[in-house]
Amino acid sequence: MRILFIGDVMGEAGQEMFVETVPVLKRSLHPQLTIANGENATRGRGINEKVYKKLLKAGADVITMGNHTWDNQEIQEFIGSTKKLIRPANFSAGQVPGKGYTIVNVNGTKVGVLDMQGRVFMNPSDDPFAVAEEIISQLEKETPVIFVDFHGEATSEKEAFAWNFDGRVSAVVGTHTHVQTNDARILPQGTAFLSDVGFTGPYDGILGMRRSSVIRRFKNQMPTRFEVETSGGQTLGAVVIDVDDQTGRAKKIRNIRVDPDHPFME
Amino acid sequence: MRILFIGDVMGEAGQEMFVETVPVLKRSLHPQLTIANGENATRGRGINEKVYKKLLKAGADVITMGNHTWDNQEIQEFIGSTKKLIRPANFSAGQVPGKGYTIVNVNGTKVGVLDMQGRVFMNPSDDPFAVAEEIISQLEKETPVIFVDFHGEATSEKEAFAWNFDGRVSAVVGTHTHVQTNDARILPQGTAFLSDVGFTGPYDGILGMRRSSVIRRFKNQMPTRFEVETSGGQTLGAVVIDVDDQTGRAKKIRNIRVDPDHPFME
Amino acid sequence: MRILFIGDVMGEAGQEMFVETVPVLKRSLHPQLTIANGENATRGRGINEKVYKKLLKAGADVITMGNHTWDNQEIQEFIGSTKKLIRPANFSAGQVPGKGYTIVNVNGTKVGVLDMQGRVFMNPSDDPFAVAEEIISQLEKETPVIFVDFHGEATSEKEAFAWNFDGRVSAVVGTHTHVQTNDARILPQGTAFLSDVGFTGPYDGILGMRRSSVIRRFKNQMPTRFEVETSGGQTLGAVVIDVDDQTGRAKKIRNIRVDPDHPFME
Amino acid sequence: MRILFIGDVMGEAGQEMFVETVPVLKRSLHPQLTIANGENATRGRGINEKVYKKLLKAGADVITMGNHTWDNQEIQEFIGSTKKLIRPANFSAGQVPGKGYTIVNVNGTKVGVLDMQGRVFMNPSDDPFAVAEEIISQLEKETPVIFVDFHGEATSEKEAFAWNFDGRVSAVVGTHTHVQTNDARILPQGTAFLSDVGFTGPYDGILGMRRSSVIRRFKNQMPTRFEVETSGGQTLGAVVIDVDDQTGRAKKIRNIRVDPDHPFME
Ligand SMILES: [Fe+2]
Ligand SMILES: [Fe+2]
Ligand SMILES: [Fe+2]
Ligand SMILES: [Fe+2]
Ligand SMILES: [Fe+2]
Ligand SMILES: [Fe+2]
Ligand SMILES: [Fe+2]
Ligand SMILES: [Fe+2]
Repeated sequence: MRILFIGDVMGEAGQEMFVETVPVLKRSLHPQLTIANGENATRGRGINEKVYKKLLKAGADVITMGNHTWDNQEIQEFIGSTKKLIRPANFSAGQVPGKGYTIVNVNGTKVGVLDMQGRVFMNPSDDPFAVAEEIISQLEKETPVIFVDFHGEATSEKEAFAWNFDGRVSAVVGTHTHVQTNDARILPQGTAFLSDVGFTGPYDGILGMRRSSVIRRFKNQMPTRFEVETSGGQTLGAVVIDVDDQTGRAKKIRNIRVDPDHPFME
Repeated sequence: MRILFIGDVMGEAGQEMFVETVPVLKRSLHPQLTIANGENATRGRGINEKVYKKLLKAGADVITMGNHTWDNQEIQEFIGSTKKLIRPANFSAGQVPGKGYTIVNVNGTKVGVLDMQGRVFMNPSDDPFAVAEEIISQLEKETPVIFVDFHGEATSEKEAFAWNFDGRVSAVVGTHTHVQTNDARILPQGTAFLSDVGFTGPYDGILGMRRSSVIRRFKNQMPTRFEVETSGGQTLGAVVIDVDDQTGRAKKIRNIRVDPDHPFME
Repeated sequence: MRILFIGDVMGEAGQEMFVETVPVLKRSLHPQLTIANGENATRGRGINEKVYKKLLKAGADVITMGNHTWDNQEIQEFIGSTKKLIRPANFSAGQVPGKGYTIVNVNGTKVGVLDMQGRVFMNPSDDPFAVAEEIISQLEKETPVIFVDFHGEATSEKEAFAWNFDGRVSAVVGTHTHVQTNDARILPQGTAFLSDVGFTGPYDGILGMRRSSVIRRFKNQMPTRFEVETSGGQTLGAVVIDVDDQTGRAKKIRNIRVDPDHPFME
Repeated sequence: MRILFIGDVMGEAGQEMFVETVPVLKRSLHPQLTIANGENATRGRGINEKVYKKLLKAGADVITMGNHTWDNQEIQEFIGSTKKLIRPANFSAGQVPGKGYTIVNVNGTKVGVLDMQGRVFMNPSDDPFAVAEEIISQLEKETPVIFVDFHGEATSEKEAFAWNFDGRVSAVVGTHTHVQTNDARILPQGTAFLSDVGFTGPYDGILGMRRSSVIRRFKNQMPTRFEVETSGGQTLGAVVIDVDDQTGRAKKIRNIRVDPDHPFME
C-alpha cells in the first residue's frame, strides 16, 4: 500500500495549501492512506473541530498532533470521540484526553498509526522508547503495517528511535522542525525513515510565523505573540511511502516539497 | 564564483570520505573555493593539527568549526597562527583564541568567510545577530562576497538569521544537526540559504556516532562516551553555490548528498 | 551605610505585603537605601507605572527587574524617563529601552545599583561576566559602594559571579528562584553574598502562583496561564547589608524571611 | 521519631566533614534514622563501594543518589545487593539497576525512604508525580512514615511535588542545587518541606567545585573537567525532622548549616 503523509499544516495559509495540493497529489500518486500533522492548523496553535473536519474533507484520513496539541482548548471536547485524531502517545499517562495511536482499515488491511513526541529540547513527556515499545508490541499482533509520526526537535533522537524499531514498523517520519530533511532512506530491516517532512504553510515566514516578528524577537528577546505569516506563497512538505502489506516492510520512500520555487510536477 | 561547502567531517571515517570524494566533486563541479566544517574531524571531537593539514591537502581552503571547537585541546596551539581555520565569531569576546572570520583571495576576488553559532538549545554565546552585524558591516567594505556557516540547532534561528542578512551576504549555510535539509533556496535579496548541509562520516551511525551506544543512552540515560561508528558505509553532505563576483548575490544553490544509496554521479 | 533589599514583589498580594511590612522593617532596621525587585509586581508579570509608583511611595528607592521585565508592555513607556527603575544590564545591547544600572545619592554617598541576569536555564542574553566587568569598571571610578541584583536560576552561576567580583562590589544578591537561600556570607575580599533573597507574595502558592494550577500543569503538561495565588497568608524575602562607605566592603549581611510561621520581631 | 538528613556529600572534603560532624550532630540531636545523599561522594562524581561503606560506618543508615548516580561505574556492581543505597525511582523503568525506595526498620517502626528526581532543567526521566504516586500508594500500606529526597533544580517543581503529596508523606527534602534554602516549613496536612538542604564539602568552591575552574568556564565556555575544590574550610548541610510515628505527620523541621562562619553549637 501507498501512504501519503503531510507535515504540520499551519494556519489558514496551510489549510488552503492543503486543500489545493493534496487532491492533486492524490490524483497523481494514488495513496491508499493519507495522514497529516495538524498541530498548527488553527491559527498556528492546535486545531479546532471546524479545521479538523476541513482537513478530513480535503483528503486526510488520520490527523496527528504534537507539542501544540492543547493550544486550542476546543480539541479537548472532540478528541475523545474520534478515531481519526491522535496526539503523542507518550503524553502524561492518564492525565490527558485522547489516544496516541489508532488502527485504520485500508481496503481490508489494518494500519496502525502511532504519534510520538521526543524529549530532547522539548517539554517533559513519558519515555518515547518505552511507551512505543509497549504500544508497538500490541499493534504487531494486529498488523505488520505500522506508521509512526515522531514529533521531535533533535535529529539524534529521531534517528535513534527509527533504528531502534527498524523492522518492527513500516515507517518513522519526523515532524516539528518545520524544515524538510534530505535523508529519506529505508533502514536495513525495512523501516522507511525521514527525519522531518517539513511543514505546510507560508513559504516566506520563519517556520511559517511572521518573519518580522520572529527576527525582532531574536534581536530583543522580548515576549511576542507570533502570528502566521500572511505574505508570500505557500509550501507543502510531504512524503510518500510504499509498504508491503504482507510483511509491513517499506519498499520505497520519497520526500516531496512543493513551493513557489518547486511547483509539483504530476 | 562557485563555492563548495562540506558539512561536519566526522572522525577517520569522515576524513576518508572527504579525501575520496572531494577531489571527485571538484573535478566535476569546478568550485573556486572549498570550505569544510571540521568540528568533529578528530575522533568526533574537535580537530588537531594533523587532521587539519590533511583536510587542507585533500582540497579544503578554509575550515570552520562549531560547538566542538575546543574538544581537542591541540587546536589552541595552532588556531592563532593560521588564516584558514576559524571558530564561531560569537564565542565569548576576548576569552578564547582564534578568529571568527577570514578573508581569502580567490583568483583576485576577496571572499569573506564567517563562522557563527546559534544560541537556541546550545551553550551560551554572544548574540549572533549583533556580532554578525558588526563583522558583516566591516566585511562589506572589503567585498560583496560573504559566506556564512551558521552552526546551530534550531531551524527558527537559522531562518531568522538568513532572512535578517538577506542581500548582505552571499550565502548562509547551516551546520550542526548532521542531517541535510531539503530547503535550499535563494532569498529575495540574493542570499543563498540551506538550513543544514548535513555531515560527512558514518552512514549507519546516529549523527555519525556508534548506533548501539546512542540507543542505549536514550533508553537508560546513563553517561556514555560516544565513539564514531565504525561499521557500514559513509555519507557526505555538501552544497554548491554560485555567486556573482560583482554583486555578491547568489545565482544558484544546490545541495548534494552522497551515500551508499546515492552514489555521486559526475 | 545600610542597604535593605526586598525580593520579587508578586501581584497585589505582594504589593500589600510590601506596603505593610517594609515600613516596619525600616523603622526597625533603619536602612539608608531600600531596593526591591519588581519583575512580578503587576499581576505576576512585569510592572506598570501605577504599581511602580506605589512601591516607591511605600519605601523603595530603586526597583530592579528580571526575565519578566517586558511582560507588562506599559514599562516601555516610562522606563526611559526614570533613574529609579532598571532592567538587567545584559539584555540585548541597543535593542531594548531602559538602563541596567543607576547611581543614587544616599546622604552624600554615591551608590551604584546594577541589575544582571543569568544565562543558565534562562533566555539568551549578553555575557553577564563581560557586561558587568565593563559597567563595574566604570562605576568603580564613581564610588566603591556597588550593589548587584543577579537575577538567575543556577546556583553555580550566581556563586561564580559573586566570587569573580569579590572585593569589587559591596554585595551580590540573587533573585528569580522565589525561594530564599540560607547561604548569606561575606566573601574574603568583602563582597556580601546571598544566592537568592526569595520573593514577596502568597505564602501558600507555588513561587506565588496558584497552587492547584501549577500542580495540574506538572501532571498534564498542558498550557496554562498562571495567576497569582489568592488564598493564604503572605511571605516577604529580604536581606540587610551593612557597607563601609569609604571602602565599599560589606561588614554584615543578614537575610530576613517574614511569613505567617515567622512574623517579624522588631 | 527524629530523622537527620545530610545533603550531597562531595569528594574527600565532604567525606571528612561527614565523618567529623555527623557523630557530633548525632550526639547532640539523637536522631533515630540518618540519611545522606551520596551522589557526589567519590571525587564529586557518583559513589564507589569504599566510600559508600565509609559513610555507613560514619553514621548513615541510608544513602540516596541523584543525577550523578552512574558517574562512578562501580555502583552498578553493588547497588543491586544492598537495601541501604537507592537511586531516583523515576529513572528509566526497567533499564537501570538498583531501586528507588527502601523500607528500613527503626526500633520497630517501618520507615519508607524514597528517592525522586525532577525533570525541569535536568536530563529526561519518568514522570516524578506519576511514579511517586504509585510507590507512595504501596508504601502507605506498610507505614505512615515516608521520607522523600527530591533531587531537582527548579524550586517550582519541588514545591509542587511537596504540596501534591502533603499529608501522605512525612517529609519532602530537596537536594541538587548544593545551596541550602531558608524555607523549611510544615505544610497544612503535615508534610515537612525544605526546597534544598545544601551540600556537604568545600565551603570556598562553587557548589564544591574548584572556584577558578568554574569561573574560567563561565567566561570562556570551553569544556573543562571540574575537580573538587581543595582549599578552604568545609560546610555541611542538614535538616532534622521530628515525625509522629503513629500518624506519619511531621511535628517539627529544622535546617542546619555548619561552616567556618557558623560552627555547630551543641
Ligand atoms: Fe509544528
Ligand atoms: Fe511541534
Ligand atoms: Fe557536528
Ligand atoms: Fe555541532
Ligand atoms: Fe520573579
Ligand atoms: Fe525571574
Ligand atoms: Fe549534587
Ligand atoms: Fe545533582
